[in-house]
Amino acid sequence: MKPLNIGLIGYGFMGRTHTNGYKRANDFFPELEYRPVLKAVCGRNAQKVQEFADQWQYESIETDWKALIKRDDIDAIDICTPNNSHAEIAIAAAEAGKMILCEKPLALNPEEGERMCAAVEKAGVANTVWYNYRRVPAVTMAKQLIDEGVLGKIYHYRANFLQDWTISEDLPQGGAALWRLDAAAAGSGVTGDLLAHCIDTALWLNGSITDVSAMTETFIKERVHQDTGEKQAVTIDDACSFMCHFDNGSLGLFESTRYARGHKALYTLEINGADASIRWDLHDLHRLEFFSNADEGRLRGWRSIHVSDHSGDQPYMDKWWVPGLQIGYEHTFVHQVADFLKSLQEGKPCNPTFRDALETQEVCEAVLSSAKERAWKNV
Amino acid sequence: MKPLNIGLIGYGFMGRTHTNGYKRANDFFPELEYRPVLKAVCGRNAQKVQEFADQWQYESIETDWKALIKRDDIDAIDICTPNNSHAEIAIAAAEAGKMILCEKPLALNPEEGERMCAAVEKAGVANTVWYNYRRVPAVTMAKQLIDEGVLGKIYHYRANFLQDWTISEDLPQGGAALWRLDAAAAGSGVTGDLLAHCIDTALWLNGSITDVSAMTETFIKERVHQDTGEKQAVTIDDACSFMCHFDNGSLGLFESTRYARGHKALYTLEINGADASIRWDLHDLHRLEFFSNADEGRLRGWRSIHVSDHSGDQPYMDKWWVPGLQIGYEHTFVHQVADFLKSLQEGKPCNPTFRDALETQEVCEAVLSSAKERAWKNV
Amino acid sequence: MKPLNIGLIGYGFMGRTHTNGYKRANDFFPELEYRPVLKAVCGRNAQKVQEFADQWQYESIETDWKALIKRDDIDAIDICTPNNSHAEIAIAAAEAGKMILCEKPLALNPEEGERMCAAVEKAGVANTVWYNYRRVPAVTMAKQLIDEGVLGKIYHYRANFLQDWTISEDLPQGGAALWRLDAAAAGSGVTGDLLAHCIDTALWLNGSITDVSAMTETFIKERVHQDTGEKQAVTIDDACSFMCHFDNGSLGLFESTRYARGHKALYTLEINGADASIRWDLHDLHRLEFFSNADEGRLRGWRSIHVSDHSGDQPYMDKWWVPGLQIGYEHTFVHQVADFLKSLQEGKPCNPTFRDALETQEVCEAVLSSAKERAWKNV
Amino acid sequence: MKPLNIGLIGYGFMGRTHTNGYKRANDFFPELEYRPVLKAVCGRNAQKVQEFADQWQYESIETDWKALIKRDDIDAIDICTPNNSHAEIAIAAAEAGKMILCEKPLALNPEEGERMCAAVEKAGVANTVWYNYRRVPAVTMAKQLIDEGVLGKIYHYRANFLQDWTISEDLPQGGAALWRLDAAAAGSGVTGDLLAHCIDTALWLNGSITDVSAMTETFIKERVHQDTGEKQAVTIDDACSFMCHFDNGSLGLFESTRYARGHKALYTLEINGADASIRWDLHDLHRLEFFSNADEGRLRGWRSIHVSDHSGDQPYMDKWWVPGLQIGYEHTFVHQVADFLKSLQEGKPCNPTFRDALETQEVCEAVLSSAKERAWKNV
Repeated sequence: MKPLNIGLIGYGFMGRTHTNGYKRANDFFPELEYRPVLKAVCGRNAQKVQEFADQWQYESIETDWKALIKRDDIDAIDICTPNNSHAEIAIAAAEAGKMILCEKPLALNPEEGERMCAAVEKAGVANTVWYNYRRVPAVTMAKQLIDEGVLGKIYHYRANFLQDWTISEDLPQGGAALWRLDAAAAGSGVTGDLLAHCIDTALWLNGSITDVSAMTETFIKERVHQDTGEKQAVTIDDACSFMCHFDNGSLGLFESTRYARGHKALYTLEINGADASIRWDLHDLHRLEFFSNADEGRLRGWRSIHVSDHSGDQPYMDKWWVPGLQIGYEHTFVHQVADFLKSLQEGKPCNPTFRDALETQEVCEAVLSSAKERAWKNV
Repeated sequence: MKPLNIGLIGYGFMGRTHTNGYKRANDFFPELEYRPVLKAVCGRNAQKVQEFADQWQYESIETDWKALIKRDDIDAIDICTPNNSHAEIAIAAAEAGKMILCEKPLALNPEEGERMCAAVEKAGVANTVWYNYRRVPAVTMAKQLIDEGVLGKIYHYRANFLQDWTISEDLPQGGAALWRLDAAAAGSGVTGDLLAHCIDTALWLNGSITDVSAMTETFIKERVHQDTGEKQAVTIDDACSFMCHFDNGSLGLFESTRYARGHKALYTLEINGADASIRWDLHDLHRLEFFSNADEGRLRGWRSIHVSDHSGDQPYMDKWWVPGLQIGYEHTFVHQVADFLKSLQEGKPCNPTFRDALETQEVCEAVLSSAKERAWKNV
Repeated sequence: MKPLNIGLIGYGFMGRTHTNGYKRANDFFPELEYRPVLKAVCGRNAQKVQEFADQWQYESIETDWKALIKRDDIDAIDICTPNNSHAEIAIAAAEAGKMILCEKPLALNPEEGERMCAAVEKAGVANTVWYNYRRVPAVTMAKQLIDEGVLGKIYHYRANFLQDWTISEDLPQGGAALWRLDAAAAGSGVTGDLLAHCIDTALWLNGSITDVSAMTETFIKERVHQDTGEKQAVTIDDACSFMCHFDNGSLGLFESTRYARGHKALYTLEINGADASIRWDLHDLHRLEFFSNADEGRLRGWRSIHVSDHSGDQPYMDKWWVPGLQIGYEHTFVHQVADFLKSLQEGKPCNPTFRDALETQEVCEAVLSSAKERAWKNV
Repeated sequence: MKPLNIGLIGYGFMGRTHTNGYKRANDFFPELEYRPVLKAVCGRNAQKVQEFADQWQYESIETDWKALIKRDDIDAIDICTPNNSHAEIAIAAAEAGKMILCEKPLALNPEEGERMCAAVEKAGVANTVWYNYRRVPAVTMAKQLIDEGVLGKIYHYRANFLQDWTISEDLPQGGAALWRLDAAAAGSGVTGDLLAHCIDTALWLNGSITDVSAMTETFIKERVHQDTGEKQAVTIDDACSFMCHFDNGSLGLFESTRYARGHKALYTLEINGADASIRWDLHDLHRLEFFSNADEGRLRGWRSIHVSDHSGDQPYMDKWWVPGLQIGYEHTFVHQVADFLKSLQEGKPCNPTFRDALETQEVCEAVLSSAKERAWKNV
């Protein structure tokens, strides 16, 4: 078993999900030749970082990411910081010869993303971006079905990601914990945070997007900043929808918002093909809905497939429990760790690479630009 | 078009459902050779009967059912009175040579039921009992699937009929409108009212029941009678469950209650066969759930079949609208009228006949007897 | 009881639904003072019209709608012909002083619609358009909830109408039975046929739409015409999506297609307000999904309300059966007939009037224009 | 942080679920003062045990459980062996002063169970039985609601546990991997394996059961033994149903089978109270269905509560991710480990104790006895 020494930068929500992935992958994927070692976690607040390190059993801490990158005992850098620091850290880490696992979205904009791609490609280091929903077994199975041609010619792709956590006017803006509401740190609002997931999955399942027409909205125009106590303009998008054409001739419709009362993380997608359709929903992520036109006419109906088989037919599920027993959200990160480790063994890239993620960034950019100019934009 | 002159006795809830059936059948089943004519409706309260007749366009009224039965211009008697009068009316009607459409349950007990069967069989008159749920298209399709062998060997049959309308202790007992709570008028509580439906469907779909072990309960022991204002013992069963064996070796489990908060008329049934299973639910009666073991393993799942086809594949649905547009509860009665009229054309019995319904009565009797004696009973 | 003599023009699918409405309304709405009389049905093929008249019990037939309009024994004209004849017939009927019940969409375009409005308003005749989904009890209840302020400030409105019946390349184009595929007869494809329903409901529930950005597609570019046997260009839109702003500041997202495999008539709508959200789906039209932020936090969840009460709390349902027993598609037309008759008693307009329906037509026009020019369009 | 040295006996499916629990609890419950240490795993096949130890990072192995029990560096014994060895191991472990975490069911029969209880109580050692479904957050919340009186007086409790994995006649009997089909090793079939779970939850949520009437069935009477290749009689129950009375006056109905085609691990429960009802289903274990009669009449409906809050309102969920992101099956074991460790800190018992589990054993015994004698049995 070869160790893979991890240096984690940032220890918020994504720091937890990634760390859990590192700790569990080998328990469930015994065929792996690498085992992640929690070598160091890095953050600016030494006390808080130490608490995180103690809880999760990291061997050491750092308070300066540049110091972390220089350490010889680190093989891979995991970037969990706000979006506006991804590029600088990733490029430096690549130059230091480290593998990189970067939280999504890749960057603030395509220009940054292109420089990040160039850096990892020049350095020849393994790289991946945590678009974790590709590795929900039901979504991975959707990919299989499409690649096998089960759906036939695709006509429609629709996806949305609906939340309701910023409806209250009293929610403060920005600050350490709420950087997602700060355009300077996040780049955009729901577009980069939520739609980026929908776009990544769509590009993976249905190929490239050629042009978009988008609409964004900021419902609450001013909020009190939680650090300064002063009112300031809200600069992120609270909601974003777009229509698009895919390269394969199908039509796309996407929507994301943080103002959909009753939905917490309702990422849904549906794909309609000439021969079959599929639907999926993050709130019940262990199920795939499937409709096949090949079924006998009288008995056609949407099937609710409980993706919990352990015979090896359903992706990843032979690693877990027995039929009928579901897994959850965190397992998508375990799967990505396992696949990343496998890719090292095999000397192959682990999707989505920085280059893959750059295409999502380009769609996001076209979406924001289309919304701003109220015009169709090519990607 | 031949007229079929109807004389309806009783004009409560079932008087409305049957009358609607008579008025709609020919609009949607143009191949019928008979057309029901609303000749007369009969009830003891002349004013109320007249109001009903005016609303529904009956040509005349009667206040004495014996007078109705004697009328030469009546071809068929429809019995919608409380259960304790079914036998007397039906036997008299048969002796008068009238066809009979009798509301369920057939009678108060098997002995009465046997006399009713003897009467109609001796008279040679067409007869049917309004176990209307046989003619929900999804249920009729279940019958087709079982008869075609799609389910394979049957292992389990389970059904329940759950309501919540008598939970309140303040609900009065008995009286004109609430005869269902009066054992003298109704014979039993949920057993004859609700379980009888479940049993009728089960016998039709899965064959005879050989023995039963039952449990009944009366949760609220005394209620104020709405006519007298006095407290009196509640004599009906509020809830009844039973286990049973079917002749084909499968096991049955049935439950009914009026104390299941949140359920209004939740009649559900599920049948598990070696090769496939089906489920159905009255609250969404236009859907049939279907699971086939013949589907590809990776893609097996329960299908929710929207029974709204109009290609002729799904029973009755070619008569109604277009795919995706559902029908409702009342259509089961329209279907039974249409089938009764068709059976006249063809000179065949219309199921369930009095004789068919007698078997349900016998199961009910065994259930009540088993519950009373806390012992298994043969049917 | 006053008779209201109906003259029906066109006897296709909508001829059936309307006729059923006329025949049933008084059975279930005994308080009505008018009773529709099926005086005459009109169509060009005398034999087929006669068959329809016989089946549905119309008293007479006509083969020329101009003759029908002249008859003194006709009070109201019901227009069920293809869209390109609505204007001519309606204007003539108004001039002849007839009430008009016109199938949707109102017209081929706003200009025609404006002339129709002017005609009925000048003549002072009662008029309504059969946007029947307003009278699904669950949808009517949604309107109540919004008007009562239960949802609070509205942020999002989304609706789609998905079908799959034209996926096959072998489906012929145009001709008598398939006029919906012929732009000359239908005006447009899914926009006027399906989206018009979604728009009508949206305007009713959420107020005016100010601007739109739309995308249309014709997936199969040529089809064989069923009358001529020759290939010709398909001129209708197979799919149409649009984004929009409502006057109240909320965002809208609409989609319609006939290429969504697995969906037959999946009209869904969802509205997200600051305090509550609602969802509805035509495939289970008797249910309303409801989420209230006012519920205790731990117990918040989407409720599936079975709209089958008979206490009078839920619109229309006190007219039908008992709790738990659902109604279906056709009942929306019965409700519209009942409301139309009630509006006559009360001397009030019956919504949606021609004028109401004109606004939907204007949105459709902006949608088609936006799609053609790939630009945002004001309504 | 105090170590708690674990000695695991048996390394099958339950060995994995428990081990995962030991490894994850401290990551997610940072307030714990104890940390489990994977000291040793024990099994008869040294090579296979070593493989398991390597995969899961146990420090050592044993091939004789008696040797394990004697080790001073072991604090707690975890029993994951077939049911017929629970008593002997548990009693010996108690006598050696070890804490015991025993897989369910407690024993082969109440007599064994009573001796086990006596042993742990005499030794004064901490003890618990892995009825893990108590710690599904939705089920734990159901317990809270009942204890708070939200449901009011309980009328009905129904539960079933449906599987389909033994339908095939070709499935072999007994042998190392299939001891659950061998009555000598398992004690019973579905009764001890599946119904025991349903009974444990029911006793916890709804109190004691007083009497039962049960029915069991062995559908396939003979199977080929996988070790000997010879046909032999099947001695376990393939299916078992029972009716019962609870001490609080409510009625119970339970069913379990391995012949319900289409169900993998469908453990469902429903409880109807005078004021509210709840439903839960293992196939979607992160949801609780809830119906409250206190809701406004027009808007009453079953709520589907997505139990994924992180505000602390919903049990356990503040330990995991953010709202909308579900956990899965394995987390129930993590919760039980955490609660066991917390109970050590607090010096309190961890439910269900051996004594709690004995009551479930007694109900199982009454069920099997009732089925055998076809008579009601007191518990």
